[in-house]
Amino acid sequence: MEDRILLAHGSGGKLGHDLVEQVFVPLFDNAFLCKLDDSAVLELGGRVAFTTDSYVVQPIFFPGGDIGKLAVCGTVNDLAMSGAVPRYLSLSLIIEEGLPVADLRRVAASVRDAGAEADVMVVTGDTKVVNKGSADGLFITTAGVGVVAPGLEISGSNARPGDRVILSGTLGDHGIAVMSQREGLQFSSPVTSDCAPLNRLVAEMVESGAEMHCLRDPTRGGLASTLNEFASSSGVGIRIEEAMIPVSESVRGACELLGFWPLYGANEGKLVVVVAAEGAGDLLDIMRRNRYARQSAMIGEVVADNSGRVVMKTAMGASRIVDMLVGEQLPRIC
Amino acid sequence: MEDRILLAHGSGGKLGHDLVEQVFVPLFDNAFLCKLDDSAVLELGGRVAFTTDSYVVQPIFFPGGDIGKLAVCGTVNDLAMSGAVPRYLSLSLIIEEGLPVADLRRVAASVRDAGAEADVMVVTGDTKVVNKGSADGLFITTAGVGVVAPGLEISGSNARPGDRVILSGTLGDHGIAVMSQREGLQFSSPVTSDCAPLNRLVAEMVESGAEMHCLRDPTRGGLASTLNEFASSSGVGIRIEEAMIPVSESVRGACELLGFWPLYGANEGKLVVVVAAEGAGDLLDIMRRNRYARQSAMIGEVVADNSGRVVMKTAMGASRIVDMLVGEQLPRIC
Repeated sequence: MEDRILLAHGSGGKLGHDLVEQVFVPLFDNAFLCKLDDSAVLELGGRVAFTTDSYVVQPIFFPGGDIGKLAVCGTVNDLAMSGAVPRYLSLSLIIEEGLPVADLRRVAASVRDAGAEADVMVVTGDTKVVNKGSADGLFITTAGVGVVAPGLEISGSNARPGDRVILSGTLGDHGIAVMSQREGLQFSSPVTSDCAPLNRLVAEMVESGAEMHCLRDPTRGGLASTLNEFASSSGVGIRIEEAMIPVSESVRGACELLGFWPLYGANEGKLVVVVAAEGAGDLLDIMRRNRYARQSAMIGEVVADNSGRVVMKTAMGASRIVDMLVGEQLPRIC
Repeated sequence: MEDRILLAHGSGGKLGHDLVEQVFVPLFDNAFLCKLDDSAVLELGGRVAFTTDSYVVQPIFFPGGDIGKLAVCGTVNDLAMSGAVPRYLSLSLIIEEGLPVADLRRVAASVRDAGAEADVMVVTGDTKVVNKGSADGLFITTAGVGVVAPGLEISGSNARPGDRVILSGTLGDHGIAVMSQREGLQFSSPVTSDCAPLNRLVAEMVESGAEMHCLRDPTRGGLASTLNEFASSSGVGIRIEEAMIPVSESVRGACELLGFWPLYGANEGKLVVVVAAEGAGDLLDIMRRNRYARQSAMIGEVVADNSGRVVMKTAMGASRIVDMLVGEQLPRIC
């Protein structure tokens, strides 16, 4: 392991995983943390899910959202991906001296709006201010707790051969939207972040009775990293078909131009579910009725061979191994 | 209100309160947040307390602790001040590119050690890395959940005339320790941070059966700000006696030299309790048996007049009004 922290240690890709596995897991050795799921499901009377994320997106305002909306949606989605109904959020701010109060108000209003849509309450918080030059405008950390229905067991380690893989929509919109805003790039059709709370979608999926095994929102590191996590945690292989993976025309164009790959692109309003084959088609139909999942697609399946690997049949008909993101594709997009 | 965020907006004093009252409370209008207690006590099957704090202390290592120990103790103490038994923590890091991994390991070990002492588990977390110059080494945000025993109702708004005020030890040690490390100041007897988890102390206080009304750890803004919060939230006056307030010789000397006032000094291992007069003496005896509260002292009482104000009888025998901290005494001490 390196002597110094690199940008890639925070990317959600390989180095980030190494950091967690090598530094934190050995120190905080408990059954909850070691599952490395998005939320910890706690025995606290009822089953309470509890999660946290920091947000350092730059710029803090971008097409389709801002750091406040992002923080709420990210934490709500992390709770929902454990099968929890999100209930309460904490909100902690690190502010650089000199931030316009108008910006702070605008961000706080976004937090409120996104919280109202997701039906969660911000119930506790903190504010720190650091001297100019010691932070970059505004950083937000949210934590959340939610309630998990009895009997629901969703985890990245539950994928089984034969399961189907469903993706809830196009890839890469959030990452390209933030990057184009930051770099002042313009595309013929503008790219907007997909930032959205997915808890209602997940509730509809749970209500459907489909036998869901894994559920995760592919944020930093993209779909490729999420599927690698599932394959590795579950000890299975995952096969996907490139032709089935939805990517918008403008994101595809931007990625080609910039040398990015949509499967590593960051999303903030998409989920990927691994579900028992029986009922997978019905689940897909149900998902497509939700406003945030109209373009849902069955993109692959879980297999017994190639354990721990993700293999993609390309549009050209070849097979290639899809690795976890190594290094950093786009820093500070969340 | 100012157009721009000032350092003092994060001080825990007047401007910080204004920011919360004017920006956040109107937006996140719910009964939990509006109490402005350290933790939100949630109805989630059992009674679950949930809190968060960000830590931006500079330097990250100081006499008596580091940012990791501070983050755990701060969140554990916030939970304990609601009368909760702290159970689980989240840990979210914002790291500046280039931080030595050895520093990160050292901080993570402190988190583990402090967590072990406080009997809490870190169960979820997040890591973000920002480019060099966009943060200052390492920022940590912890959130925590804990369980509140049935029937326990502790809040800053519960003080009643006749109650006694007990402080658990000397004031200002943490703030002076960090400041002297940062500025390279040396005193004849070195000052060490009082950073400590107080949950066992609180458990012993709860077990004593004393009728505790308010409980809070005077961190940023110091004892003066905490007592003003109690007076204001409860609609009472608070009288304290300067001669009864413990301050170590070295902190007193440093404060005189630097023009600080110990009552505004930051503490990370002290608490102040407002308790019914009957049983207050017994509570004081019980507190003094705990290693973190040996110098506990009865420092004053709650009165019906002077509503919303804190009045101190000085060592010279005069009376003065003790205001909430205005501006920033020492930035980035937590």
